[in-house]
Amino acid sequence: MSQEYPSALFERAVGEFSKLPGIGRKTATRLVLHILRQPTGDVENFAGAMTQLKKEVKYCKHCYGISDTEVCPICANPLRDHSTVCVVENIQDIMAVENTMQFKGVYHVLGGVISPMDGISPSDLQIESLVARVAEGGIKEIILALSPTMEGDTTNFYIFRKLAAYDVKLSVIARGISVGDELEYTDEVTLGRSIVNRTPFTGKSF
Amino acid sequence: MSQEYPSALFERAVGEFSKLPGIGRKTATRLVLHILRQPTGDVENFAGAMTQLKKEVKYCKHCYGISDTEVCPICANPLRDHSTVCVVENIQDIMAVENTMQFKGVYHVLGGVISPMDGISPSDLQIESLVARVAEGGIKEIILALSPTMEGDTTNFYIFRKLAAYDVKLSVIARGISVGDELEYTDEVTLGRSIVNRTPFTGKSF
Repeated sequence: MSQEYPSALFERAVGEFSKLPGIGRKTATRLVLHILRQPTGDVENFAGAMTQLKKEVKYCKHCYGISDTEVCPICANPLRDHSTVCVVENIQDIMAVENTMQFKGVYHVLGGVISPMDGISPSDLQIESLVARVAEGGIKEIILALSPTMEGDTTNFYIFRKLAAYDVKLSVIARGISVGDELEYTDEVTLGRSIVNRTPFTGKSF
Repeated sequence: MSQEYPSALFERAVGEFSKLPGIGRKTATRLVLHILRQPTGDVENFAGAMTQLKKEVKYCKHCYGISDTEVCPICANPLRDHSTVCVVENIQDIMAVENTMQFKGVYHVLGGVISPMDGISPSDLQIESLVARVAEGGIKEIILALSPTMEGDTTNFYIFRKLAAYDVKLSVIARGISVGDELEYTDEVTLGRSIVNRTPFTGKSF
């Protein structure tokens, strides 16, 4: 489908959708045809949701997560442990950690990881603001919960060095075999780490 | 990710994206985060393209294809053969046929195929308007180019009966083995049809 559609309006809508990551021209066409079949009100809702989000969304002044208010509901919650900060890449990761129900602290959203290949340097991320939060005092532990990739590791190390001068406990989420995984099919790096980082067995189930 | 995001604006945008076919909640989140990273002008362009398309797009009064004008560029082209009409399901199929450079006639867009499972009956499709075009006169041949599925076949047969009273040649695009396919791996129905509908070999390459 190299040719342009006989409607400039349609062509423009397909072009806009094609700009989204992972959406090719064929998928874009399918989505635009779907939108075209919806009532005008629904299309306006769709378009309005995007512009309103872009114009009105705020970043929490503490954790830099997406929020409708100056301070996000998690940072504003007095029942959360404000002395433990979990460092994540993005807002999806906050949701993933929240869904485990295992973390009662607060977050810090970096906005990505250091990746010279993608042109993402430390100054593009919320690292300085993390250091500033630690410098302010009151934070006892920083849990690094970044992707177990080269970029994630680089970022972990960068943060480790930046925080070396401060009296704060730094930990990284455990890497090991996934629950339900079979040892036979676990890659050797993961299995090796899970042996090196073995934990005391207390007789209780996890 | 069953939980809602801590921002209602973000949640709404993700919800709107999730309504699109084939877009789940995770993909929607990824797309909305991408949109959020774009400049405000780009987001407005994206949203504007959708609302403008919905408000201003027209359906060609002859072929019911999408068009910016009353009559689409193909129907308005005097160099096309207006006595041969290719019946297709949607606008993508027009582009697919156009890309073959093998068809110089005009089109008729049904808007789908008869599918009781999906609640699509003949009255939901541009079949009456096709019959009306034929009744007007001037059309010599109708080429049915619908999907080679049960629904496509049903629609072909429905149109065949609707047009039985008119003096118009009705044909269906050939079904057979695809160019480059291996016989060994062709399904028996297709291979059987390609034998039944064999064409005279003239010594020329296709």
